[in-house]
Amino acid sequence: MKLSPLQKFRYQYVPKLPGMLRNGIAEICVKEGAETSSVRDQEKIKALFPNTYGKKEIIFQKGENTSAAKKQVVGVILSGGPAPGGHNVISGLYDALKASNKENILLGFKGGPSGLTNDNCVILDDATIDAYRNTGGFDIIGSGRTKLETEEQFKIAAEVCKKRGVTAIVIIGGDDSNTNAAVLAEYFAANNTGVQVIGCPKTIDGDLKNEDIECSFGFDTATKTYSELIGNIQRDANSGKKYWHFIKVMGRSASHVALECALECQPNICLISEEVAEKKMSLSQIANYIADSVCARAERGMNFGVAIIPEGVVEFVPEFSVLIQEINELLAGSKADKFNELPSWKDKYEFIEKGLTNESMAVFAILPEAIQQQLFLERDPHGNVQVSLIESEKLFSALVKDVLAERKKNGTFNGKFGALHHFLGYEGRCAFPSNFDADYCYSLGYNAFMLIQYGYTGYLSKVSNLSKPAEEWVAGGMPITKMMNIERRHGHDKPVIRKALVELDGKPFKYFQANRDTWAVETAYTFPGAIQYYGPAEVCDLTTRTLALEKE
Amino acid sequence: MKLSPLQKFRYQYVPKLPGMLRNGIAEICVKEGAETSSVRDQEKIKALFPNTYGKKEIIFQKGENTSAAKKQVVGVILSGGPAPGGHNVISGLYDALKASNKENILLGFKGGPSGLTNDNCVILDDATIDAYRNTGGFDIIGSGRTKLETEEQFKIAAEVCKKRGVTAIVIIGGDDSNTNAAVLAEYFAANNTGVQVIGCPKTIDGDLKNEDIECSFGFDTATKTYSELIGNIQRDANSGKKYWHFIKVMGRSASHVALECALECQPNICLISEEVAEKKMSLSQIANYIADSVCARAERGMNFGVAIIPEGVVEFVPEFSVLIQEINELLAGSKADKFNELPSWKDKYEFIEKGLTNESMAVFAILPEAIQQQLFLERDPHGNVQVSLIESEKLFSALVKDVLAERKKNGTFNGKFGALHHFLGYEGRCAFPSNFDADYCYSLGYNAFMLIQYGYTGYLSKVSNLSKPAEEWVAGGMPITKMMNIERRHGHDKPVIRKALVELDGKPFKYFQANRDTWAVETAYTFPGAIQYYGPAEVCDLTTRTLALEKE
Repeated sequence: MKLSPLQKFRYQYVPKLPGMLRNGIAEICVKEGAETSSVRDQEKIKALFPNTYGKKEIIFQKGENTSAAKKQVVGVILSGGPAPGGHNVISGLYDALKASNKENILLGFKGGPSGLTNDNCVILDDATIDAYRNTGGFDIIGSGRTKLETEEQFKIAAEVCKKRGVTAIVIIGGDDSNTNAAVLAEYFAANNTGVQVIGCPKTIDGDLKNEDIECSFGFDTATKTYSELIGNIQRDANSGKKYWHFIKVMGRSASHVALECALECQPNICLISEEVAEKKMSLSQIANYIADSVCARAERGMNFGVAIIPEGVVEFVPEFSVLIQEINELLAGSKADKFNELPSWKDKYEFIEKGLTNESMAVFAILPEAIQQQLFLERDPHGNVQVSLIESEKLFSALVKDVLAERKKNGTFNGKFGALHHFLGYEGRCAFPSNFDADYCYSLGYNAFMLIQYGYTGYLSKVSNLSKPAEEWVAGGMPITKMMNIERRHGHDKPVIRKALVELDGKPFKYFQANRDTWAVETAYTFPGAIQYYGPAEVCDLTTRTLALEKE
Repeated sequence: MKLSPLQKFRYQYVPKLPGMLRNGIAEICVKEGAETSSVRDQEKIKALFPNTYGKKEIIFQKGENTSAAKKQVVGVILSGGPAPGGHNVISGLYDALKASNKENILLGFKGGPSGLTNDNCVILDDATIDAYRNTGGFDIIGSGRTKLETEEQFKIAAEVCKKRGVTAIVIIGGDDSNTNAAVLAEYFAANNTGVQVIGCPKTIDGDLKNEDIECSFGFDTATKTYSELIGNIQRDANSGKKYWHFIKVMGRSASHVALECALECQPNICLISEEVAEKKMSLSQIANYIADSVCARAERGMNFGVAIIPEGVVEFVPEFSVLIQEINELLAGSKADKFNELPSWKDKYEFIEKGLTNESMAVFAILPEAIQQQLFLERDPHGNVQVSLIESEKLFSALVKDVLAERKKNGTFNGKFGALHHFLGYEGRCAFPSNFDADYCYSLGYNAFMLIQYGYTGYLSKVSNLSKPAEEWVAGGMPITKMMNIERRHGHDKPVIRKALVELDGKPFKYFQANRDTWAVETAYTFPGAIQYYGPAEVCDLTTRTLALEKE
């Protein structure tokens, strides 16, 4: 295997642990806090988690390790999309496990949660761990999207654990995966399997965040990578002075990624899905909002700009959301066959026109033809529109173009408008973790082992005070049920970790709101540049603007 | 203006000059070499450049500065697409100019070559230069694509120079811009204007390269940025193990960028346009070549991979090139109107079917509909197909999908194939220059001033021995006419700098060729990571694999 110079040197990086975990395993003791209750729907959640509900928050501190001596066989699982730092969670877990007892074993279940139910695993040893320290990706054992949520799966999981002698499972995943971790922990406890379950908060989307979890890992590195590229594109726009760049960024429903990139780069426009929903904005209102910036800049001689579009925004436009629902119904089941047989787009268009309500047809009619076709041609196995595949960066630039054509006729726009499009996502999910993510993840993994050693289950590994230097970080654990409420999912009430959307009264959005009108008109671009792993602390150790503002 | 932490710290970076330029302006003397002659078509080129042809190559060395004392007013122009390091060319030029005489003036002509003919300029002072040191982009004065090539433009340029007291012009640009610089130099000399012209070799495409110019500036930083992202995408592919990523990279006709990224990242596939042309490959052959890798990897259980597609490749596929020519003729002039009036794509398709030869229609018929439409819907102001807008990454993945569907029927493919698409270009043209580009560009600019001070015109600023530490670099100048030959352009013989394509018998391609069969089947990915500006020299100071292999 040929290693890049950076990879060779990153192997030598020693991640920083929270101060309280720096004294060696023998000098880590537990301080229990108050009993917890879920953020909402306490009675319902308590009833669903009789064995794991209401446990105490705990933190670790310096003191004699009083945990029972026990050989541990820990299984680790990577769940869902990769996030920078996953390998460090595993190496932190491994180091604590081996420091505690050289006989302890770390099993890696391969290809995601299905690795557990398929009993597909590998023993992780020094050589393997050392080849992945401080690197990006989830390739050490692979990841997958299978959800562990049925009784049948839990039963198989219990059998696999028994066969392998597994004493604990660490699940590294997002909100859904950690919800499932809590359910699995409850199952294991209810059935006296003796297997503990600990979760670790992963997602570049930043939507696994609450009063206990300051941020999910990977968000820092991914947003720094996107911000590097957005900054570069901004400089390009300001050099050639002839294009508007529409840049869609990953992040699923929430706009945390888009907002963080906007705080880092100060683009002309950044849509925030949560605001679009709150204000019930129409496509036309959004297009006009962007067009206002284009016009104001054109008047100042600047026929260029940058607009950030969060991946999920179209779902938050009420009229568009209704349109999608109508299309899904229009083509449900066998109705799709009839549609697919229609020979030309013209025939299909007529079919659509007949099938939609007037309101939705009005929305459909203003879409560019390429987007209209995307709605019908690319559907998932259930026949539903794949909203995530809609090229919303092209959608909005086309709508803005139409608005500007109107304004040109009216004489209210005399500039030029040329658009280029980008989608940033896969480029940032597997970057070498920033120093912050390398440290944070290593600490989460190390800490996860401490929770295991002290016998906790159904807990999320928790490291907080993250806006401070690592020395001052606080390591501990929080019952996952504490973060849960009941939500309606697919027609059923389900206990889930509340997904964190951007709060419109939160400091990050408020800061953005206070500045965006200036950014929309002026060229106030900031250029973060590539992630630095070496050099001055200010350059290579700072975490996100979002966290800094939240902790101000 | 809000500065990122990196930008603040990059201001403090002191670019490294070649050893021979480190003794101060007063200690730089000229060593003239032999007279030069153009690489081909010597008589014709000599006849076209009677005043500037055949001059001597020169290098600088330590010794008493013997140049005539003269107040210099230098105008600088950024031409064409931005490349990382342009600001450092200007700051190197500025520092040498001011070190020589504080009364010297540096004028920046704004928005590219048209800034000269429009007399649109600004005096560059300490505050301005300091705000742009070691930063990416061409935003200090903007860039543009106007070509200075007509007698009329030269006349105006001469008038502007006279009015402003300009003694020399520095043109920072690619092969065409430097060709034009040579023609302008000849005009100025022939008309006794006393204005010198010096060029600097810029382009991320890497196609301005020859026995004198080891590489153009910006290529290092841009390819490092693309390689960072390709490496990240490779790790993502290897984490989720379910997608083939088709990644188009900028670079215009030449495949230097694609090849360098392949050498850095070791992807499964990298097309090289020059090889496609040499072997006269058809679209179907290329699709089968990629499909072979998909199948071989699927057999080993790896339904994922990464393929790099050079921007210009479709132009090098002979049958595709003929198709484009036929389409251009089919829609020339008023014929396009008739076509545009046809109501549906079906009607248009019939029109196309009638208009193309059978051979070209066969090629057209296998293209995915979206690409077929791109060929007709997006044409330039002259009605020609815009080849650069063709989404060739989607074209090839669609063709591969078709091949695999056939093979599945035949039972020769049993894997899965899901494709994702990327285009990397604007993301890398304005990155903070790598230490290499920061040093190289600063040296080019400093050196350009030395050429001016010693009275040279029609020269390219030349810094060589670049695979060695900066201390050992050799600074000097080469007559641009030396790099010229006669080529047929738009029906006329024109003297031009020969564009450098990838040499199929060169060491970089040979290395790639020797390894690619392994890379196609195995997962031999390398992960370069983000450009580092600080840290170990091996991590932050190495230039491209291409140059290292060429200089082996």
